[in-house]
Amino acid sequence: MRTSLCDELGIEHPVFGFTPSEHVAAAISRAGGLGVLGCVRFNDAEDLDRALTWMDENTDGKPYGVDIVMPAKVPTEGTQIDLAGLIPQSHKDFVQQTLLKLGVPPLPDGEGGEGVLGWLHSVARSHVDVALEHPIRLIANALGSPPTDVIERVHAAGVPVAALAGKAEHARRHVANGVDIVVAQGYEAGGHTGEVATMVLVPEIVDAVDVPVLAAGGIGSGRQAAAAMALGASGVWMGSYWLTTAEYELGNSSTQEALLAAGSSDTVRTRIYTGKPARLLKTRWTEAWASAEAPEPLPMPLQNLLVSEAHLRIARSDDPSVVSMPVGQVVGRMNEVRPVAEVMTDLLAEFDQTVKRLTDLNR
Amino acid sequence: MRTSLCDELGIEHPVFGFTPSEHVAAAISRAGGLGVLGCVRFNDAEDLDRALTWMDENTDGKPYGVDIVMPAKVPTEGTQIDLAGLIPQSHKDFVQQTLLKLGVPPLPDGEGGEGVLGWLHSVARSHVDVALEHPIRLIANALGSPPTDVIERVHAAGVPVAALAGKAEHARRHVANGVDIVVAQGYEAGGHTGEVATMVLVPEIVDAVDVPVLAAGGIGSGRQAAAAMALGASGVWMGSYWLTTAEYELGNSSTQEALLAAGSSDTVRTRIYTGKPARLLKTRWTEAWASAEAPEPLPMPLQNLLVSEAHLRIARSDDPSVVSMPVGQVVGRMNEVRPVAEVMTDLLAEFDQTVKRLTDLNR
Repeated sequence: MRTSLCDELGIEHPVFGFTPSEHVAAAISRAGGLGVLGCVRFNDAEDLDRALTWMDENTDGKPYGVDIVMPAKVPTEGTQIDLAGLIPQSHKDFVQQTLLKLGVPPLPDGEGGEGVLGWLHSVARSHVDVALEHPIRLIANALGSPPTDVIERVHAAGVPVAALAGKAEHARRHVANGVDIVVAQGYEAGGHTGEVATMVLVPEIVDAVDVPVLAAGGIGSGRQAAAAMALGASGVWMGSYWLTTAEYELGNSSTQEALLAAGSSDTVRTRIYTGKPARLLKTRWTEAWASAEAPEPLPMPLQNLLVSEAHLRIARSDDPSVVSMPVGQVVGRMNEVRPVAEVMTDLLAEFDQTVKRLTDLNR
Repeated sequence: MRTSLCDELGIEHPVFGFTPSEHVAAAISRAGGLGVLGCVRFNDAEDLDRALTWMDENTDGKPYGVDIVMPAKVPTEGTQIDLAGLIPQSHKDFVQQTLLKLGVPPLPDGEGGEGVLGWLHSVARSHVDVALEHPIRLIANALGSPPTDVIERVHAAGVPVAALAGKAEHARRHVANGVDIVVAQGYEAGGHTGEVATMVLVPEIVDAVDVPVLAAGGIGSGRQAAAAMALGASGVWMGSYWLTTAEYELGNSSTQEALLAAGSSDTVRTRIYTGKPARLLKTRWTEAWASAEAPEPLPMPLQNLLVSEAHLRIARSDDPSVVSMPVGQVVGRMNEVRPVAEVMTDLLAEFDQTVKRLTDLNR
């Protein structure tokens, strides 16, 4: 399973692994793929710097990348206190009442924190600044093409830019803006995602642009990787599947328990996580937001600020039935905890078997 | 592109073509696939008999099948007049007002008709009776496994039964009921469809049952067929893609115009066609039903009776912007009218190229 991207990026296999965990990202890179560290959880650029320094020391010199969350248009900006003033009281009340109903305890005194600020443009820019001080081989943007000046800076450092797209017209726009690799992310993917499924979206984007396309959404096995490559992709982009790897340390046991138990029908695409449609695990938390009395989610970045304390409380509550977690429909295949290297070895072996099986169909 | 199903059914290629047109179905069979005629539009069993007799004379002795719409549980049954009494006046008013707003003229005096009765259990049973008097090689059921007695009768005639499934648990139940072939139909498919996308659903169902699985949803090219086979399918089931073939004669020019112009984002999954979730072309008609003042769609078979006159009026209105038409996301690839044989030849050639390309990736 080799494409021209392997030579361009210095990787063995065109398997791109997005993860918020530097431990998982490093393991993906060590296994011959490209680990891509999600930066949105780093409010403080120094924390990101420490994580990347750790990766520099733990990737055996293998390439890795980072993923930022930066809209092309600068959205509402400001400190958390400025923004909090834009959140209606009725929304805050709904969140508090829902947590009470779901039995999610308050945080211990003194805990709390500032929420996730990575959705802010200024913070995402600080992630780029820090990342470029490390030997990164890719910057990907979860919200399409970054602003042109950011693309130019990244290119000046000799680093290619990847951007997620859920429609062919978005992919065309990204490439016109200077993006080097398009990640065609289908409906079934976890996190921010569009309405067109991977099977339809990937060939449409491959035909629409003249840069390498990675397929994302629904990929967790060698058969699925082979399907993605059959559709014309130059590589696969996997996010959800690493959430149940042994190296993943960011979650707590209730999150992992919920993911291992979930089937492919147990996800929902909703705006409640960030204000933009994103696929989450279906739990009592997402069901509460789907009820008749729930308010409409707020636009990005307000929605994430609204629910950020709730996310902390939910994470501490240790109750699998209320987890708030982005994950794709491939969660149905995530039924045991395995090391990253084993996931990669199995995927590549099944890919080989699949290609042989397809060849035999034509005999 | 050969699998064991080819030998079992006497076909050249494992390409199953569902279509309401006997002209298209016959052309698919002549081209080496298995044409599967949708029966739901035949209110009168004699009309179906005539269509199948025509197919017997126009398929060069090649195998073909039929598709019925029969829930395993018998739903509300009765004559159209009995059932019409169960439809709330407010629903009828909404339909009339919407057609007025959309500028859809009434039917000429004397026209009207009885609506589509194929959704009724008794009518679907009459379709089975008629079909078994012809040399059919497959009966497929769009709504899962038919009742056990129907399966037994069909088996006694030496004909295998296929059933559509949108979840692995449905597929397991179908096979336990005696179904021989499962059609794993993903979210992106046209008509009745579930929420799990083809990329995730197909391998899940392949792993869940020990009968051949056909992949449906999002397939209209050789790359997509190769992806489906990579996922473990024993063949592909295509429905939407034939709607813009030259042999298709059931639609009117406005329907075809709307399909040719639509992109992959121009569909919507909604209950307004039959009462069960089905993917339709997104038009001013579907948008009206998505508005705040629209009522909830009625359960099957009432919803289809409610809108059946509207469908006739819409079809006669010759306005592409109000078409009511089931179609999958693959509509984005349906951009020109082509003969069935050409579609088949191109699909097979692209399949071959794709398998060669995949083989090269492993060198």
